[in-house]
Amino acid sequence: MNNKSIFIKNANQMITLKGSSSTPLTKEKMSELNMIENGAVWIEGDRIDAVGTTEELLAKYKNKLEEAEVIDVTGKIMLPGLVDPHTHLVYAGSREEEFNMRLNGATYMEIMNNGGGIHATTSKTRAASEDRLIEESLVRLDRFLLHGVTTVEAKSGYGLDWETEYKQLRAAKKLDEMHSIDIISTFMGAHAVPADFKEKPDAFIDLIIEEMLPKVAAEGLADFNDIFCERGVFTPEQSRKLLEAGKSYGLIPKIHADEIEPYEGAELAAEVGAISADHLLRASENGIKRMAEAGVIGVLLPGTAFFLMAEAAKGRKMVDQGVAVALSTDCNPGSSPTCSTPFMMNLACMNMGMTPAEVITATTINAAHAINRGNEIGSIEIGKKADLLVLDVPNYMQMQYHYGMNHTDTVIKAGKVVVKGGTIV
Amino acid sequence: MNNKSIFIKNANQMITLKGSSSTPLTKEKMSELNMIENGAVWIEGDRIDAVGTTEELLAKYKNKLEEAEVIDVTGKIMLPGLVDPHTHLVYAGSREEEFNMRLNGATYMEIMNNGGGIHATTSKTRAASEDRLIEESLVRLDRFLLHGVTTVEAKSGYGLDWETEYKQLRAAKKLDEMHSIDIISTFMGAHAVPADFKEKPDAFIDLIIEEMLPKVAAEGLADFNDIFCERGVFTPEQSRKLLEAGKSYGLIPKIHADEIEPYEGAELAAEVGAISADHLLRASENGIKRMAEAGVIGVLLPGTAFFLMAEAAKGRKMVDQGVAVALSTDCNPGSSPTCSTPFMMNLACMNMGMTPAEVITATTINAAHAINRGNEIGSIEIGKKADLLVLDVPNYMQMQYHYGMNHTDTVIKAGKVVVKGGTIV
Ligand SMILES: [Zn+2]
Ligand SMILES: [Zn+2]
Repeated sequence: MNNKSIFIKNANQMITLKGSSSTPLTKEKMSELNMIENGAVWIEGDRIDAVGTTEELLAKYKNKLEEAEVIDVTGKIMLPGLVDPHTHLVYAGSREEEFNMRLNGATYMEIMNNGGGIHATTSKTRAASEDRLIEESLVRLDRFLLHGVTTVEAKSGYGLDWETEYKQLRAAKKLDEMHSIDIISTFMGAHAVPADFKEKPDAFIDLIIEEMLPKVAAEGLADFNDIFCERGVFTPEQSRKLLEAGKSYGLIPKIHADEIEPYEGAELAAEVGAISADHLLRASENGIKRMAEAGVIGVLLPGTAFFLMAEAAKGRKMVDQGVAVALSTDCNPGSSPTCSTPFMMNLACMNMGMTPAEVITATTINAAHAINRGNEIGSIEIGKKADLLVLDVPNYMQMQYHYGMNHTDTVIKAGKVVVKGGTIV
Repeated sequence: MNNKSIFIKNANQMITLKGSSSTPLTKEKMSELNMIENGAVWIEGDRIDAVGTTEELLAKYKNKLEEAEVIDVTGKIMLPGLVDPHTHLVYAGSREEEFNMRLNGATYMEIMNNGGGIHATTSKTRAASEDRLIEESLVRLDRFLLHGVTTVEAKSGYGLDWETEYKQLRAAKKLDEMHSIDIISTFMGAHAVPADFKEKPDAFIDLIIEEMLPKVAAEGLADFNDIFCERGVFTPEQSRKLLEAGKSYGLIPKIHADEIEPYEGAELAAEVGAISADHLLRASENGIKRMAEAGVIGVLLPGTAFFLMAEAAKGRKMVDQGVAVALSTDCNPGSSPTCSTPFMMNLACMNMGMTPAEVITATTINAAHAINRGNEIGSIEIGKKADLLVLDVPNYMQMQYHYGMNHTDTVIKAGKVVVKGGTIV
């Protein structure tokens, strides 16, 4: 525990996103940022104690300065630690062979026959010990941290049986304790239809509802309940049933929606009151409209489209239509094996037409709201957790302008310096 | 000067590209890599003294091991230091405002009226002192180095008058001496038509030929002579005239070709015997064919397309048609403000359909050939300069598979360790 106060001063631009804790930001509010020039923050314990200009805070704390750790970030910018609201963090193995085959022209069937696809990861994750899962996931968490990410959501879903789902959720809890990054868990038993339920997906949904949801709830293993709603996987009807059942156990609905084709996933998200609908590459006009009305956050995953060589979701249009947009890596071994949330911001600008200001909102406060933590993280405000990111660029536009590079200089997590000069300390 | 021998051992995969020094690699040869498992290199001074498996080199040097610096790269891969064969490294100022305006919907004319475009950089570069140019460029060189790049080409062309072109070329020479990265210079007086020659571009070409080329040659300021051949800038006729004149002074032709529309740039490159034709987004079928026949290297710049939200060049097709493809950042303040050559490899896979093996060839030996240094750098072979890159991934496919992240662990430049643990030493 860090007992010394920390004073961070002289941020060329400090992006506070002040006033956004109660609801996610939409439309032009996504561009506001509420920036302070020559900004400073005073940290006590794991909390932000004061926010203002360097002059203001120097005056306010002049009697306490001597005992504080002072971090001078002249020439750099400061923003809230990044939040990644959609990852499949906990899994075993990697699938670069499959990626390489695809680029060498192999067909989907050739890849499947060679042992590729989600079931490859399911097998490896089932076979892995909990320790092994933790070990592999720690590497990813370090990578996230080096990219300025201080909170990640993590889904189960590579078990498709209770034993493995439970192992993944337990591993996530332990990782949360072991690593400085905070991990927020989602139960996603319905990530795919397991082989032994291929002809009876309804029975699998019933199994999840009857056998798994009660245990997830009883042990407090997850905050959210997610499902892959897509033709050939789970139908909107199955999804509705599962998400409603989850609600009765206090699990907030999330949904993998309309990734491959329009399938009324966005509409369903609005209907069941999901906190977010994710992917949305092929969401319908009406679905987007209903999400905006119902306040469902659109979590866009431009890396997945990039990696799969698909067209990106219509981020620009969704912002304009009033959806609160968040961005995420979708970190997973099949369709997005990356831990760079900042690179998602590059993609959102270049492939979705979002602006440098909007993508910051989408990876901080809106991402925090997408995991129900808008009150706790995602903006630089008094009383919030001291999760801060210092980037080695003089203004926020350069974060995207100097694309394809990681500008992380310093990361503060819960009042502790965890990355310094781009290296984990 | 490093007098101690260096022994790098235990590379999980060592990509040597052996046998590629005399000609650039094409077609299936671009995928060969000539990899050694559990590879090792022995370095004496600035040169590679031996290449083989760790066992072989341990046996060969057993009596010298004690005095050597031993670097164990277990679990990592080793490849030649990356070569970036097309940059506009030396310039002043940055243009993130223009980028931000564009993403906020500003038109080309609004951006121009707000002082944007290449002439913004020309004005700033003309106004900057040589020291200032050096200072700003050093930041970029450090960024290149942190991404595993050990040699960059650098063009003049933000002067469009002799005084400034000369200043840029001198700055490049000094940077070459000051920084561990080697800089190979290209004279590009014909980067744009300066305002005072707007109505008489032929006269500007004559001025370059009569006044500038002789001075560039006399002082040995550049190896290459480049021109922006594009409708509205310089015609193929003007380009032919300038490139032929350059040849008479010993300057090897390069050409910015067919970026915006098909304009017979690729054909011209073949005709004048250019060492490379660069950009090529809209190169004609016939132009590609003639480049392949004439052995003109195609330097593709996928970052520029990404940043400008344009369709990428047809890298896959060019490789299949027998063009020796190289990749580059095009590092410049208007259309590609990045120093991440590895990210170009990601883009070449995802946006051009090149394979993980091909993009390594394209950023090492083929890039070296594109700047006439195939004999000196770009592969791991006895007698070559000891420019080496160690990446923290267990196999070469993961370099692209784990996209959007910088995997650089260690960089050796001319036999000296210059990056260690991802940090400049
Ligand atoms: Zn997902
Ligand atoms: Zn260029």
